This record gives sequence, C-alpha cells and structure tokens, in this order.
Amino acid sequence: MNHVINLQQKLALFDDHWSPKIVAQLNDYHVKVVKVEGEFVWHKHDETDELFMVLDGELTIELADRDAVVMQAGEVFVVPKGVQHRPIAHTECHILLLEPAGLINTGDAGGALTASNDDWI
Amino acid sequence: MNHVINLQQKLALFDDHWSPKIVAQLNDYHVKVVKVEGEFVWHKHDETDELFMVLDGELTIELADRDAVVMQAGEVFVVPKGVQHRPIAHTECHILLLEPAGLINTGDAGGALTASNDDWI
Repeated sequence: MNHVINLQQKLALFDDHWSPKIVAQLNDYHVKVVKVEGEFVWHKHDETDELFMVLDGELTIELADRDAVVMQAGEVFVVPKGVQHRPIAHTECHILLLEPAGLINTGDAGGALTASNDDWI
Repeated sequence: MNHVINLQQKLALFDDHWSPKIVAQLNDYHVKVVKVEGEFVWHKHDETDELFMVLDGELTIELADRDAVVMQAGEVFVVPKGVQHRPIAHTECHILLLEPAGLINTGDAGGALTASNDDWI
C-alpha cells in the first residue's frame, strides 16, 4: 500500500451504519472508518484494547462500572480490553477505529449488528 | 487510561519540533502527536510499519525507490517496514503517529534529531 488515504473521500463512498470499512493496515492492525447512528450493543473484546477517534459529530461510549465518555471531532478514546462498552450516537457520527485485524465489531455479543471484519474500501 | 484525549489540546502544550509526545496506548502501540518543520533525516524501521496522519498543515514523505507522497490534514499514509523515508514540512505541520511502543524516531539513522521514545504528554 503506497498511496495516501483521504478519510473524507473514503467516508463519501458509503452510507451504511455500524459497518466498519478498512482503509489501511499497520502491521497486523487495521485502520477503519465507520458511520454510526443510534445505539450499538453492549459488548467487550477480551483480547484487545480498541481505539476510537471521532472525525465528525459526537459519540458517547457507555462503559461498564465507570462514567460514560462523550467525544467530539478530534478526540480519541481507548476502550481497555475486557471492558463492556456501548457506543451511542444521537445523530450520525463518523469515526476512525484502530484495532487488530480480524476483530469482530460486536465482540462477545454477536447478533444482528455483527459486520464483516474484512471489508476494505 | 479512562479519559478522552483532545488532540488539539495536547498539541497546544508544546512547541518543539520532531519530538513526538505519547498521548494514548493501544495494547503495545503508542499514539503520538508531533510538530514538525523542515527536513528530517533519511531512516527506516526494519521491524515495523509506521502510520502518519496529518492533523494540520502539509507533510511530504520522500521514499526510497518510489515517488514521494504529499499529505494534507485528514490524510493517512503507512510507511512500510524497511522502507527508507524522510519527512519534510515546508511550514509547521502537526502529525499523529501510530507505531509500536519504544520505536526510535530516527530508526536506523540515529543522530541529533533522535528524541525520547517515552515522552507522555
């Protein structure tokens, strides 16, 4: 991969929600962009931390046993591995994710919102 | 680490160039912010890819054996492991870096621009 990735151009290529698209790979990690709106499912990733960066909009991440965090564009939050969390966006929000390649978006929860973990854009 | 990281607030805390500051950890990776201006040294990292995201300004990355890339704010580029590269910023540029914890900024080159690899902000 020897090209510059423009995140806004990538985001313009799709409209579906809660379906992360891979835009870059760093060693065995994937950088993804995703559009979200509404409430996701409570879940956790026992094997890894997960990084969220808001690119546009506002994202709330509810966390088990601690206060929720509210993130604006240009803000980063790392959900520690093993911590139950639930992303919520009251209006559409654009996010960059960083996580190990192959991670399942719904973690241990599964269900209808489970998306492909190998969807490049 | 259970707090939101505002990248602009972190960048406002320092003025030195070519001296990355760690703002977040994801498993054994560090997220860093750095201000750069001028020409860095040619170097490579034989053991890892390195991700650059421009937050403000314009960054050129010269690459051995291939065309240079020019990046604007909101753009991402991954320098593959083992590839000689040299970042250049004609005016001050703010960058987010993602790389394994402990990575040395000057890679195999060393020299006067070698910075701390454990400088949190």
